[in-house]
Amino acid sequence: MEELEGSLLKKINEPADLRKLNLDDLPVVCDELRQFIIDEVSSNPGHFGASLGVVELTVALHYAYKTPYDLLIWDVGHQAYGHKILTGRREQFHTNRKYHGISGFPKPSESIYDTFGVGHASTSISAALGMAVAADLKKQRDQKIVAVIGDGSMTGGMAFEGLNNAAVNNSNVLIILNDNNMAIDPNVGGVSNYLLNISKSKSYNKLKRKIWNGLGKLNGLGPRARRLVQNTEGALKSALLKESNLFESLGIRYFGPVDGHDVKYLANVLRDLRDIPGPKLLHVITKKGKGFKQAELFQTEFHAPGKFDKVTGELFDCECAMNKPPKFQNVFGNTLVELAEMNERIVGVTPAMPTGSSLNIMMEKMPHRAFDVGIAEQHAVTFSAGMAIQGLIPFCNIYSTFMQRSYDQVIHDVAIQNLQVVFCLDRGGLVGADGSTHHGVFDLAYMRHIPNMIVTAPMDEIELRNMMFTAQQENRGPFSIRYPRGCGCQVSWKQSFESIPIGKARVLTDGNELAILTIGTTGITAARAVKALIKDGHSVAHYDMRFVKPLDQELLHQVFARFNKIITVEDGVIQGGFGSAVVEFMSDHQYSANVVRMGVPDRFVEHGTQEELIRECGYDQKGIYQMALHLLES
Amino acid sequence: MEELEGSLLKKINEPADLRKLNLDDLPVVCDELRQFIIDEVSSNPGHFGASLGVVELTVALHYAYKTPYDLLIWDVGHQAYGHKILTGRREQFHTNRKYHGISGFPKPSESIYDTFGVGHASTSISAALGMAVAADLKKQRDQKIVAVIGDGSMTGGMAFEGLNNAAVNNSNVLIILNDNNMAIDPNVGGVSNYLLNISKSKSYNKLKRKIWNGLGKLNGLGPRARRLVQNTEGALKSALLKESNLFESLGIRYFGPVDGHDVKYLANVLRDLRDIPGPKLLHVITKKGKGFKQAELFQTEFHAPGKFDKVTGELFDCECAMNKPPKFQNVFGNTLVELAEMNERIVGVTPAMPTGSSLNIMMEKMPHRAFDVGIAEQHAVTFSAGMAIQGLIPFCNIYSTFMQRSYDQVIHDVAIQNLQVVFCLDRGGLVGADGSTHHGVFDLAYMRHIPNMIVTAPMDEIELRNMMFTAQQENRGPFSIRYPRGCGCQVSWKQSFESIPIGKARVLTDGNELAILTIGTTGITAARAVKALIKDGHSVAHYDMRFVKPLDQELLHQVFARFNKIITVEDGVIQGGFGSAVVEFMSDHQYSANVVRMGVPDRFVEHGTQEELIRECGYDQKGIYQMALHLLES
Repeated sequence: MEELEGSLLKKINEPADLRKLNLDDLPVVCDELRQFIIDEVSSNPGHFGASLGVVELTVALHYAYKTPYDLLIWDVGHQAYGHKILTGRREQFHTNRKYHGISGFPKPSESIYDTFGVGHASTSISAALGMAVAADLKKQRDQKIVAVIGDGSMTGGMAFEGLNNAAVNNSNVLIILNDNNMAIDPNVGGVSNYLLNISKSKSYNKLKRKIWNGLGKLNGLGPRARRLVQNTEGALKSALLKESNLFESLGIRYFGPVDGHDVKYLANVLRDLRDIPGPKLLHVITKKGKGFKQAELFQTEFHAPGKFDKVTGELFDCECAMNKPPKFQNVFGNTLVELAEMNERIVGVTPAMPTGSSLNIMMEKMPHRAFDVGIAEQHAVTFSAGMAIQGLIPFCNIYSTFMQRSYDQVIHDVAIQNLQVVFCLDRGGLVGADGSTHHGVFDLAYMRHIPNMIVTAPMDEIELRNMMFTAQQENRGPFSIRYPRGCGCQVSWKQSFESIPIGKARVLTDGNELAILTIGTTGITAARAVKALIKDGHSVAHYDMRFVKPLDQELLHQVFARFNKIITVEDGVIQGGFGSAVVEFMSDHQYSANVVRMGVPDRFVEHGTQEELIRECGYDQKGIYQMALHLLES
Repeated sequence: MEELEGSLLKKINEPADLRKLNLDDLPVVCDELRQFIIDEVSSNPGHFGASLGVVELTVALHYAYKTPYDLLIWDVGHQAYGHKILTGRREQFHTNRKYHGISGFPKPSESIYDTFGVGHASTSISAALGMAVAADLKKQRDQKIVAVIGDGSMTGGMAFEGLNNAAVNNSNVLIILNDNNMAIDPNVGGVSNYLLNISKSKSYNKLKRKIWNGLGKLNGLGPRARRLVQNTEGALKSALLKESNLFESLGIRYFGPVDGHDVKYLANVLRDLRDIPGPKLLHVITKKGKGFKQAELFQTEFHAPGKFDKVTGELFDCECAMNKPPKFQNVFGNTLVELAEMNERIVGVTPAMPTGSSLNIMMEKMPHRAFDVGIAEQHAVTFSAGMAIQGLIPFCNIYSTFMQRSYDQVIHDVAIQNLQVVFCLDRGGLVGADGSTHHGVFDLAYMRHIPNMIVTAPMDEIELRNMMFTAQQENRGPFSIRYPRGCGCQVSWKQSFESIPIGKARVLTDGNELAILTIGTTGITAARAVKALIKDGHSVAHYDMRFVKPLDQELLHQVFARFNKIITVEDGVIQGGFGSAVVEFMSDHQYSANVVRMGVPDRFVEHGTQEELIRECGYDQKGIYQMALHLLES
């Protein structure tokens, strides 16, 4: 921490310390905060560009608002590193996203300044309204609520639901639209174009700033000044900025756009706004990655860049290097293009995750057949259903945790109509450093009770390819394929396609004393455990079940006829999941066996590496080995 | 059908027949169609007001568009009776919503004119975009897609996600905003106010109509006329209608508002619009219940009025008469007020179902503490979470089937943060005539795998009251209470409150040969079956489990120690549901018993009365009796 000697940042242990500084000190605080983030995140990977982009906004907000009494909500929370550092977690920040360290997202259990747990997009306006209504009912009308939401998150439907409801209760909510024209990939859609139009309107913006600066010279804001702000705003907007009606027409007063990197100006604007009652929106223009050249240039890469050189910006992405197995997402992305070249009915859909899902490969090669629909999981699924009913075969790629957003659409728009939509659920299972909000642990459980749905989890890259090949064959219905975050185990993954019979498991190892049934990549871990068990003289059978639904009943009859000791392993919740399906089978056919279901227990799992978390949940190689031994010896 | 002699309607067996008529015939068709709907729905209950409101729009659409080649999507589908009657189902219409009859909603399996299955709100724009993109890819640029969506549905977030995405692909989609200022109850929120402002702007509307009528005189629409329409539109709007920017700013051309009850004018406008390429929105003003005086006056009551006198409009609501047990929803509504009078932290939330959920009772008595947030289930849940984190105790009432929309918010915003939000899931289980889109059969399964969630289903009204009482006690976390559509069994339901120990079942009958474990109102049915079994000389134990989670482990240990024949009964899916939890318990503790899980099988159940559907699924009184007998004799 020697680099902090004599610094201002070092003296800020809580926002109250920040508020003791002069307005003129704020740019220095911003420089130091920015450098601190660069130093930390370059060596301890995390989300980067978003937090750099809101350094000034973060400082200005804590300067102008009376946190923690005033409540600050960060939508998604990728951008809240500066907030964490200013609110007492500077010294712990090196533990960010590490096992038992601080979370990469705001979390009320971690700090009083984290007012609402976030992670998924577009929740902040609804939460802020709830808090504001509560403040009213508790007669705390002086308590202000601020939601900071990106233009990407603004495309999510629930943000609109919040906007639509904001005017109704006339609550003291300030919505800050942090407009950097990006989600993780460039933002798309009508809202994005609209915002771009506003921010490009130079004459308006010049005049606007002039007026606000004039107002700023008034000392504090009494009723008169407030009226003046309001009147001037109104007149100015009517004359110059019809577009602002997107928000104004919903009954929310629109202010902006303002430069999100001028901290002194921002602090003044926010102080003014704090005293204006009712729901209002401040449109702030920021640059993702601001202040770190490479991050400004390559915004998607520097969203969460892994380790990098903090001077040159060189990326040290070592996760999946040459001659190593590829990431599952890349197997998906490349395979989809191969399949689409063979089958013209195939199209691809992603809700704002082209890079994260590797659908960008198809988007480049076949731009007319691959669609980024924005942060809009519900729309992504029903849009896919609309294409499917016209005879296309959409591969709709959504992270398992975000698919929770479209659970109803999967049932109502796809499964009831038995449409051939292929759901590719990336980031299935425990995802690691993103933690409890992002683990994709519910999908096997929530997919398997949906009628008509085929539920699969391939064990490796070759199986993933073959499952995708199988899913696009004629006359299939809804088909779900889930695979984990990160790399697989097959260097030679690009084999020719083979069709997989629906509901057909495969025998990996035969044995007599105990059967291990795995789904998905837990098969790799279990195979290692089985190898060790065999080496130790045990006879263990291992089946890769492939399908959670339909289960391979033929195989299960054999298994339950031969074994009375059975282990099921899944990278997901054991309540109602794969193991539960096996136990249902056992019960339905009146078999009796000692079945141990291994997987994620009935609690929310925090963050850490995937290995640490799987170990914690007990279904790592050692855990499986020991459980098997325990059963064998019982 | 004698009243159709000499009628025009009688001659319309498909829309092509309609298109053979003269424009001047259309008002007659409308009159006949309206009367047909009144005659039918007054004696065979169904949704009423919505279909009356779009009689002219329906006729005009099928007249102007080339259905079924052009694709017509009805959002929700409450309003599609006229569409069904005009598209070959006039003679079957008396079977509407009946067991094995036609569905109350559009359903592709029923007719080629039903292009997309609907039931839940706000899906139509997404589906239409998907279809339009598919039409483009299939090189059917002359195929037009029309989505008809109400202003209520427009508040749902996924409608906005669709709007945001509409401009991107420049598809030939016409969105018809059917603006009657209502959901089932009056519509609320910013969008609603905005639309009201537009439709009240008299000068604009007068001028608008004049210009369009002028254009209509041009024979057909060549490129020149089209340009003219476009230019005039543009100029007119810039000058007069800033508000239209809500849609225009998203890149969707806005037309309107137009009178939705002038069928000839509508047909002309639609013909014009059919030839204008790209995404566009036509704002149509209609009146819900149009043409039936009582329905116009009492729009909420006549949304789905049950039987009524087709002349006077007198309602014959006989479902829950005097001295009979009340509807569960009314027990909820009255009990919530009682509790809120005792506990000032309690608030109520409904997404656009004040009447349907009976939250309207609280909204009248405590307007500041009860919130209708519009058709916005996602927002409803996170809004509740925001209030809960500030120390309030929200009772968030959402129909089970619509709670599917907020599955992610339940996990991400409530359960992870372990907030005390009480979810009251009305219409749990098979709901009857609304059919497959509306059955609330997944909730027990999708709630029980969420950590921190207490999952309950009370057996009767008294239990519902006590469960609500229990849920609002100090220091609870997320609490889910589900109950069915319709009436209960307790006339004297208003008993003083008793606290229910968490995870504690109750013994209803003791016995020795077989145990029946029920959850929720299946307990009533099962109790009758048990009575018959005892009468027949059998010794059967019956337990009302009350909690799906946590299970009463103490009781289950006793049950599995004493019985080797066990039946579980639930009004929900048996994959991963309550019975599955019991079987997991059995397996985890290495009990062995013949467990039969009764409930909804792994397929979508169609419509009929609740009794017919439960019988079909086999867990009616007779089904339980016979299954018990079968087990006892095995």
